[in-house]
Amino acid sequence: MENFYTKQPQYYGDYLGLEQILSAQRPESEARGVDAHDEMLFIIIHQAYELWFKQIMHELNSILAIFKNETINDNSASLQTVTHRLGRIVEIWKVLIEQVRILETMRPMDFLDFRDLLTPASGFQSYQFRLLETKLGLKMEQRHQQEYYQQQLRCEHLQQIQQQEVELSLFELLDKWLSRLPFWQIEPYWSDQNTKVAESIENLHPFWQEYRTIYKNSLRGAEITEISLADFDALFFDNSENRSTRLSAAACQSAMFITIYRELPLLQQPFELLNRLLEIDELMATWRYRHWIMVRRMIGLRAGTGGSTGAGYLKGAVENHHIFKDLSRLATYLMPRTVIPPLPEKLANKLIFNNL
Amino acid sequence: MENFYTKQPQYYGDYLGLEQILSAQRPESEARGVDAHDEMLFIIIHQAYELWFKQIMHELNSILAIFKNETINDNSASLQTVTHRLGRIVEIWKVLIEQVRILETMRPMDFLDFRDLLTPASGFQSYQFRLLETKLGLKMEQRHQQEYYQQQLRCEHLQQIQQQEVELSLFELLDKWLSRLPFWQIEPYWSDQNTKVAESIENLHPFWQEYRTIYKNSLRGAEITEISLADFDALFFDNSENRSTRLSAAACQSAMFITIYRELPLLQQPFELLNRLLEIDELMATWRYRHWIMVRRMIGLRAGTGGSTGAGYLKGAVENHHIFKDLSRLATYLMPRTVIPPLPEKLANKLIFNNL
Amino acid sequence: MENFYTKQPQYYGDYLGLEQILSAQRPESEARGVDAHDEMLFIIIHQAYELWFKQIMHELNSILAIFKNETINDNSASLQTVTHRLGRIVEIWKVLIEQVRILETMRPMDFLDFRDLLTPASGFQSYQFRLLETKLGLKMEQRHQQEYYQQQLRCEHLQQIQQQEVELSLFELLDKWLSRLPFWQIEPYWSDQNTKVAESIENLHPFWQEYRTIYKNSLRGAEITEISLADFDALFFDNSENRSTRLSAAACQSAMFITIYRELPLLQQPFELLNRLLEIDELMATWRYRHWIMVRRMIGLRAGTGGSTGAGYLKGAVENHHIFKDLSRLATYLMPRTVIPPLPEKLANKLIFNNL
Amino acid sequence: MENFYTKQPQYYGDYLGLEQILSAQRPESEARGVDAHDEMLFIIIHQAYELWFKQIMHELNSILAIFKNETINDNSASLQTVTHRLGRIVEIWKVLIEQVRILETMRPMDFLDFRDLLTPASGFQSYQFRLLETKLGLKMEQRHQQEYYQQQLRCEHLQQIQQQEVELSLFELLDKWLSRLPFWQIEPYWSDQNTKVAESIENLHPFWQEYRTIYKNSLRGAEITEISLADFDALFFDNSENRSTRLSAAACQSAMFITIYRELPLLQQPFELLNRLLEIDELMATWRYRHWIMVRRMIGLRAGTGGSTGAGYLKGAVENHHIFKDLSRLATYLMPRTVIPPLPEKLANKLIFNNL
Repeated sequence: MENFYTKQPQYYGDYLGLEQILSAQRPESEARGVDAHDEMLFIIIHQAYELWFKQIMHELNSILAIFKNETINDNSASLQTVTHRLGRIVEIWKVLIEQVRILETMRPMDFLDFRDLLTPASGFQSYQFRLLETKLGLKMEQRHQQEYYQQQLRCEHLQQIQQQEVELSLFELLDKWLSRLPFWQIEPYWSDQNTKVAESIENLHPFWQEYRTIYKNSLRGAEITEISLADFDALFFDNSENRSTRLSAAACQSAMFITIYRELPLLQQPFELLNRLLEIDELMATWRYRHWIMVRRMIGLRAGTGGSTGAGYLKGAVENHHIFKDLSRLATYLMPRTVIPPLPEKLANKLIFNNL
Repeated sequence: MENFYTKQPQYYGDYLGLEQILSAQRPESEARGVDAHDEMLFIIIHQAYELWFKQIMHELNSILAIFKNETINDNSASLQTVTHRLGRIVEIWKVLIEQVRILETMRPMDFLDFRDLLTPASGFQSYQFRLLETKLGLKMEQRHQQEYYQQQLRCEHLQQIQQQEVELSLFELLDKWLSRLPFWQIEPYWSDQNTKVAESIENLHPFWQEYRTIYKNSLRGAEITEISLADFDALFFDNSENRSTRLSAAACQSAMFITIYRELPLLQQPFELLNRLLEIDELMATWRYRHWIMVRRMIGLRAGTGGSTGAGYLKGAVENHHIFKDLSRLATYLMPRTVIPPLPEKLANKLIFNNL
Repeated sequence: MENFYTKQPQYYGDYLGLEQILSAQRPESEARGVDAHDEMLFIIIHQAYELWFKQIMHELNSILAIFKNETINDNSASLQTVTHRLGRIVEIWKVLIEQVRILETMRPMDFLDFRDLLTPASGFQSYQFRLLETKLGLKMEQRHQQEYYQQQLRCEHLQQIQQQEVELSLFELLDKWLSRLPFWQIEPYWSDQNTKVAESIENLHPFWQEYRTIYKNSLRGAEITEISLADFDALFFDNSENRSTRLSAAACQSAMFITIYRELPLLQQPFELLNRLLEIDELMATWRYRHWIMVRRMIGLRAGTGGSTGAGYLKGAVENHHIFKDLSRLATYLMPRTVIPPLPEKLANKLIFNNL
Repeated sequence: MENFYTKQPQYYGDYLGLEQILSAQRPESEARGVDAHDEMLFIIIHQAYELWFKQIMHELNSILAIFKNETINDNSASLQTVTHRLGRIVEIWKVLIEQVRILETMRPMDFLDFRDLLTPASGFQSYQFRLLETKLGLKMEQRHQQEYYQQQLRCEHLQQIQQQEVELSLFELLDKWLSRLPFWQIEPYWSDQNTKVAESIENLHPFWQEYRTIYKNSLRGAEITEISLADFDALFFDNSENRSTRLSAAACQSAMFITIYRELPLLQQPFELLNRLLEIDELMATWRYRHWIMVRRMIGLRAGTGGSTGAGYLKGAVENHHIFKDLSRLATYLMPRTVIPPLPEKLANKLIFNNL
C-alpha cells in the first residue's frame, strides 16, 4: 500500500479527464451559425449512452473471461462475480431507460432545428451497441433488416463486429456451461447407461421420463396436448440438424433443472444468474420499445436520419432481438411443486454443504 | 435549408466525438498494475454526472440570459421557454438520482481496491457542480464548511466561482423579476397612493390588509398567533437591514399572489415556473441525501478522499444548501380558497385574454 | 370554515376505511390449506392497480365534464385544470409501470403454487381498466380479440362498457374541441369565403396552401413524394366517408397549428394538453408492454388463466390499443421553423395578451 | 391438483374483493358538500400505502418466523428465501418512494380545500407503519418525539405495538443469528482456548488480533488513531453494560467476517442478506426524507394535522430512525483486500462445497 503514496496527488478533474470529456460537444448548428438550443442535449445524451455502453462492455468482458474457462469452480467466487456484475448491468439498463425521458423533453419542432445537419448519422452506427449485442449473442443474420447495419457501419467497425461473431458469445458460452453441468453424471438417480444428458427422446433419463409424463398429464384437450408435447420434446430432446431453438437441448434441460431445484445450495447462484440474464434481455427489449416510442413521437413516420424507416425499423428490432428468448420459453413447461417428485437423497447430497 | 446538404456526410461516432469521449477513462489501478475492476465504474459514472452537469449549465445559461433582460414580455415565449427548460433540468435530476443506484452496486471492499489511489481527489473539486450551485444562487458564505471548497478547488476554478458570484444568480434575478411584476401598479384595486408594492407593514395595500386579517383570524392560541403573525409580517413586509429572509418582501408578495391566483391566464406560466424551481431544489436536496447515504455505506464514518469528514459533510450540505427555501416557506401562509376574496373585476381583466 | 370544527375528530384509520381495505385479502390458497406465500402479493398488487385505476377514472371524469361544455373559456382555468390533471394521470402511470417490478419478484414456480386456484379469473375482467380505456376512446371493435372481452366480462360489466361507448369519449371530445377552435375564423389571414376550416383539398386556406407547398418541396425522390403527399392530404383534408384516420381533418389541422405556433400565449396550454395526451398513450403502451414481458416470464407461452393465449394476446393489445395514435402521426408533417412563414400580425394579435 | 377444479370458477373482481376495496373511499368534502377534487387522491394514495404496508408485513412475518428458529440450516433454502423476500421489500419501497411524486401533484391550495376536515387525523396514526418499524427493530424509546405516538395512536393500537416490542424484532433476531454463527468455533485457525467469539479486547482471537493491528497501522495522525482505535474496540469488543452500540460485539464481528470473506460459498447468501437489510434501511430513510420534503412543500412550516410540528417532526425521524445503522458503520473498519491475510485452508474448507 505504501507505494500508493509516492504518487502525485490527484485532482478530480484531471483524474476524470474532464477537459477531454467536456470539450467533446461540437454542435453542428453552432458551427454553422444556426440557432438550435437542443442540439447540445442531443449530443450529450448520446455521449452519456455511449459512456454507459462502455461500462456494460467492461462488465461483459469480465463475464465472458470467466465463462471462457474450461470449468467454473463452484468454490471460487466466479458465479457470484458474474451474478453481481450482471446485476450491475441490470441497474445500468434501468437508468438508460429512464434517460429516454430526458430526450423526450425535446420537442419535434426543436429537433427539426438541427435534424438535417446530422444526415446520415444515425443510431445504427453505434458501434459499441452493435458490439455489445454481438457479445451477448445476437448474430448479424438474426437482425431485422441486417442490410442497414452493413450499409451504415464504417467498414472497420463492421469488420470488428464480424470478428467478434467468430468468438464465442455469452449466449454460446452459457449454452456450453449449462450443457456440461454435472447433474446428469451423478449416479444413483439414473441408471448406468445414462451417464450423459439425454439428447433424444428415445434415450431419456428417468428424471425426464417422469417429468415428461407429469407435463403430459397436465395438458387438456387433444389438440393442445399434441402441439404442446411436440414443443416440449423439441425443446428438450431434439438435437437434430433441424433444431429450431438456438439453445441446445442439454442446456435447456440444465436450465430447467436449476429452475426447479433452485433451493439447493449449489443451484442458488446459477438460478440468480439465469434470472439476471432474463432481466437484461427484458430491459434491453423495454429500452428498444421506449426508444421506438420516442422516435415515433419525434419524427412521426418519417425516415430516420440514417435512411431507415425510423420508427418502423425499431419495431422490427423490438420483436426480433431478444437474445435469451429460449430461457424465457422454459416457464411454459414448469409444473407445480406439489407434483414434482423430490430429488433422491443421494443426488441432493451432492448439491449441498457437507461440512456443517 | 439547402446549405445543409453542401456539408460532409456525418458519421455517428465522429459527430459525437466518441473517440475523445471513450478514450478518457484512465484507471490509476491499471497504470499501476493493481487489480481493481470497479475503478472503471467509478470513473464512468462521474464522467456521466459531469456530462449532465454541463447540460444543466447549458439550460441554466439560457434561462439566466432570459431573466437578465430588463423586462420579460408576456407575449413572447420567454416564460414558456424558461418553464420548459426548468422542466428538462427536473428530468435530468431525476436520472442523476437514479444513477446513484448504479454506484451502489460497488461494494465497500471493491472501492478499497483503488480508493487510496485517488487521494486527495474528491467530489468537492467538481468545478461544474460548484458553478452550477453558484449560478442558481448559493453563495460561498452559505456553504457548510466553506473552507473545504477553498482548500480543495484549484485556484483558477475558485476564482471563476468567485467571479460568478459577482454576477446575478438565478435566485437574484428571480427576486428582481418577481419584485417588478406589475400587479400592484394596476389601479382600481388599490388607492392611488399605493402604486408600488408595500414594503412596510405601515403602508399596506388593501389586498394585503385583507389577507393579513384573514390570516390572523385563522391562527389559534395566543402564543402561536404572535409568533406566526410576526413571521408573516417579517416575510412579507420587513424590508429593513435586518431582514433575515433572502428573498425580498416584494418578491414574496408577488410569489404569493401568483400562487393564490394561479388560475388567471397571465399567471399560469409564472405559477408553473415557481413550481419547477421548487422541484429542482427538492431534487437536488434528494440527490445530496442519496449521495450521503451512498457514501456512508461505502466508507462508513471515515474521512472522504478529500479529507472531509465524508458522510458528515454531506449531511451539513443536505441541511444548508436549499436555494429556494424561501419559496417553500410561502405555503405556510396560504389560506383556503373559500376565505380569499375574489379579485376585483377590473384587475382580473388585466390578467386575461381580451380578444376572445 | 367554522362548521369544520363542529364535526367529530377524525382518526386516520377510520377516515381511510382501513378496516375495509385491509380485510379484503382472501387468498384462495389459505382457504384450501395450500401453502402459497406469494398469493398475497398477487392479490395486493392487483388491488393497488385497481385503486389507482379508480383515481385515474376520478381525474378522467372531471376532464370529460370540462370537455363536455359547449365551449371552453380560455379565460377560465379549464385548460389549466385539464392539463394539470392529465399530468397527474401521467405520474400515476409511471408508478403503475414501476409496480410491475414488484410482481416480477414472484417467480414462475411460486406462481404455480396457486395459479390453478384462480381459473378462469384474469386481468381481462378488470372492469375498471376496460371502462377507463373506453372513456379515453378505445372502442370494442378496435380491440385485439374483442371476443375475449365479451366472453370474459360479467354481463352487467359488459353492458356498462357498451353504455359508455354511446357517450362521447375523450378522443371524440378532443376531436370536437380541436375542430371548433377559432383559428380559421379569424379574418385577415384568410379570405372571406374561408370562414371555416378547409375540409377538402380543393378549398384550402391560404395557410394550408402555403404549408402544403413547403411540405411538398421538402420531399425527395419521386415515389416518396407521391406517397407522402397523398398521406398528407388524406390526413388533413380528406373528410370523406372513406377517411381512414379516426381524428377528423379539421382536428388534425388545429392540432398541427397548435404544435407549430405553440409559443403564442393562447396556444401554450393547448400545446401542453396535447403533449400530455401523447404521454398517457405512450405510458399505457409501455405498461402493456412491460406487462406482456412479465406475463411471458411468468407463464411462458401457456394460455393465461382466462384462457387467452396469454403473452400472445398482450402483444396484440400492445400494437392495436394506442388511442391517440393520430396525434403522434402529426410529427411526420412538421417543417423546420426556418421555412414556416410567421403568422400575419393581425392574426397573431388575437392569440396574445392585449392589456400589457 | 384435481381438487382445484371442483371449486367454483373465479371472477377477477370477486377474487380481489374489489367491491370492498373500491367502496372504501369516503371523502369528507363530499359528505359536507364542499368542493375538493383532490381529497380522492389523498385517500387513495394513503390506501395504496397501507396495502403495501400489509404486504411488507406479510414478507416480514415470514422472515421473522424463519429467524425465530433455533438454528438456520444452511442446506435448507431458508436464507435464500429471506434474501429473496427482503429483495421484494426493497422493490416495494422503491415504488413507495416513487409514489410521493403522485401526491406532489396536489398543490398546497388544493390541499387547503379539505385539510381542516381531517383534523386531527395524521400519518402518525398509521398503525401498520408503526408496527412494521417495531418488527424491524425500532423501539418506542428511540423514536423522535415519542410522546406524539402515545397521544396519537388509539389505545388498542398502542397496546399492540407495546406487545410487539416484547417479542424479538428482526434487529434482535439478526443479532442472535450473527452471534451464533460458527466461524469462531472452527478450530485450526484459533487456539483451543478461543472456542467462542472474543467479547473483550483482552481475549482476542488471533484473527482479530491480526485485523486490529492492520487497522491500527492504517490510521494516520496521533489523534485520529486514538479515537478511531477506541471506536474500533468499542464496536467489536466492548460487551459491557455501557456498550453504546445496539448491535452486540459478537454480531459485529460476524457481520464483518461475512463482509470480508463474502466470496466463500457459505457466506454468499449471508452477505446478500446483510446488504438487503442496509438497502431497506436506506430506502426507508429516503422515503421519510422525500415525505418530509413533500410535507414541507404542502404545508410549509405549519403544524401537521395531528398537531405535530409537521415538517419539523419528520426531520427528526429522518435522523433517528435508522434501524440497521450499526451495520452501515462497519464499512468504516474495512481494510483493502491486499492487506487482509487469506483464511487458513482448513477453515476455508469448512465454508465451501466439498463434494465437487
